[in-house]
Amino acid sequence: MEEGSRPLDALNAARNKIVMVELKNNHRFVGKLRAFDIHINTVLEDASEYENGELKRKVGTVFIRGDTITIISPE
Amino acid sequence: MEEGSRPLDALNAARNKIVMVELKNNHRFVGKLRAFDIHINTVLEDASEYENGELKRKVGTVFIRGDTITIISPE
Amino acid sequence: MEEGSRPLDALNAARNKIVMVELKNNHRFVGKLRAFDIHINTVLEDASEYENGELKRKVGTVFIRGDTITIISPE
Amino acid sequence: MEEGSRPLDALNAARNKIVMVELKNNHRFVGKLRAFDIHINTVLEDASEYENGELKRKVGTVFIRGDTITIISPE
Amino acid sequence: MEEGSRPLDALNAARNKIVMVELKNNHRFVGKLRAFDIHINTVLEDASEYENGELKRKVGTVFIRGDTITIISPE
Amino acid sequence: MEEGSRPLDALNAARNKIVMVELKNNHRFVGKLRAFDIHINTVLEDASEYENGELKRKVGTVFIRGDTITIISPE
Amino acid sequence: MEEGSRPLDALNAARNKIVMVELKNNHRFVGKLRAFDIHINTVLEDASEYENGELKRKVGTVFIRGDTITIISPE
Repeated sequence: MEEGSRPLDALNAARNKIVMVELKNNHRFVGKLRAFDIHINTVLEDASEYENGELKRKVGTVFIRGDTITIISPE
Repeated sequence: MEEGSRPLDALNAARNKIVMVELKNNHRFVGKLRAFDIHINTVLEDASEYENGELKRKVGTVFIRGDTITIISPE
Repeated sequence: MEEGSRPLDALNAARNKIVMVELKNNHRFVGKLRAFDIHINTVLEDASEYENGELKRKVGTVFIRGDTITIISPE
Repeated sequence: MEEGSRPLDALNAARNKIVMVELKNNHRFVGKLRAFDIHINTVLEDASEYENGELKRKVGTVFIRGDTITIISPE
Repeated sequence: MEEGSRPLDALNAARNKIVMVELKNNHRFVGKLRAFDIHINTVLEDASEYENGELKRKVGTVFIRGDTITIISPE
Repeated sequence: MEEGSRPLDALNAARNKIVMVELKNNHRFVGKLRAFDIHINTVLEDASEYENGELKRKVGTVFIRGDTITIISPE
Repeated sequence: MEEGSRPLDALNAARNKIVMVELKNNHRFVGKLRAFDIHINTVLEDASEYENGELKRKVGTVFIRGDTITIISPE
């Protein structure tokens, strides 16, 4: 990233790649980043949900409301 | 979904299909997605409410206020 | 509801009918839906308040601030 | 109230009457409704504060910030 | 106050008078109301802070962020 | 301060002076007030962080997000 | 910083430098500040996550949603 880059540029660079999304309730989703908007509403595909580090279930496509997200990190 | 798609496109693709909606209080609703708006206010039909994974009651039509929602996932 | 309907259409269809309103503090009101706005501020008439499933009191008319509401469901 | 009435109409009808205001911290104020605005910021006069159903103190005039309010109900 | 008065009129009437400000964390400040704005950001002078009803400290001038306030009441 | 003063005037008067900033998580920062904006985002210099009244660490320059602040008080 | 400086100037001065970001859930990230916006959405590179003062994991690039942040401090 260059000087003056914006936070959403980092999300844009991660599009179609595997990301980890952590929620305020400590649940975590890992999946392919398909879409996001300025509210950080986010859509993952082929996603898995983890709770306390353990796989809880596979959820396929999942829409995550932005205000519940704490961090998003490319794997 | 194609490059540049927006999160609400994923909800739009799920319209009239069965989705799972999870709330901040950990309650979960499963039903047919009939409507949503930019606040993620959502209406399900033929919905059932689950608490701790167990069916709590059938609620028919239910309006869910968007700011209480964490995730929405097609079944 | 038809394709493209909005969440507030569902509330509009419930106007003057008995609805159940659930709050973030788990209290529940059942009464006739008289008014609502885009913030989901809601007015019920002939309302009863329930706590843990038990009738707590009859409150007549009640104004409920929208941001405290989780769901609204027609009976 | 007629079809199409708005939630603030119910508050307007209660102006200068005794209302009960419940807060998110479960405190309750009973007093004469003197003023409110679109944020539901509210002013009561000759108000009393209740905690767990018991009178805690008389507060005279009280300004209540709207976002702390859950419900307002005419006595 | 007359019919149609607004909540901030009550605060305006209390300007330069002693008020009690209660916060969401149950702390309470008593002091002279010097300034407030539409967010209810508030400045008190010659203020004292109380916790559980007991004087905790004298703070002189204090700026209180509006969204942390539950009520403001003239003494 | 004169009649009609605004809350941010009090912060402006404290610029480059030592202030105490208290957060919603009860942590407290003491340092020189270098900058603030209408969201009450605040920058302190030569700041120290206190927890339960005890010095936790010296942090030098610190940016504090406004919505986490409860009060700001000049020493 | 000079008189009249704004809080985001302090973040701008820290760009490409190592900063510590503390979240409302008490997690802490240390990494190179690559981007931020007016919501304080922040991107760190070469970041490490700490919990209770202990290194939890290395996360490389991380997008942190602004509303979850309490403070940002240059190392």
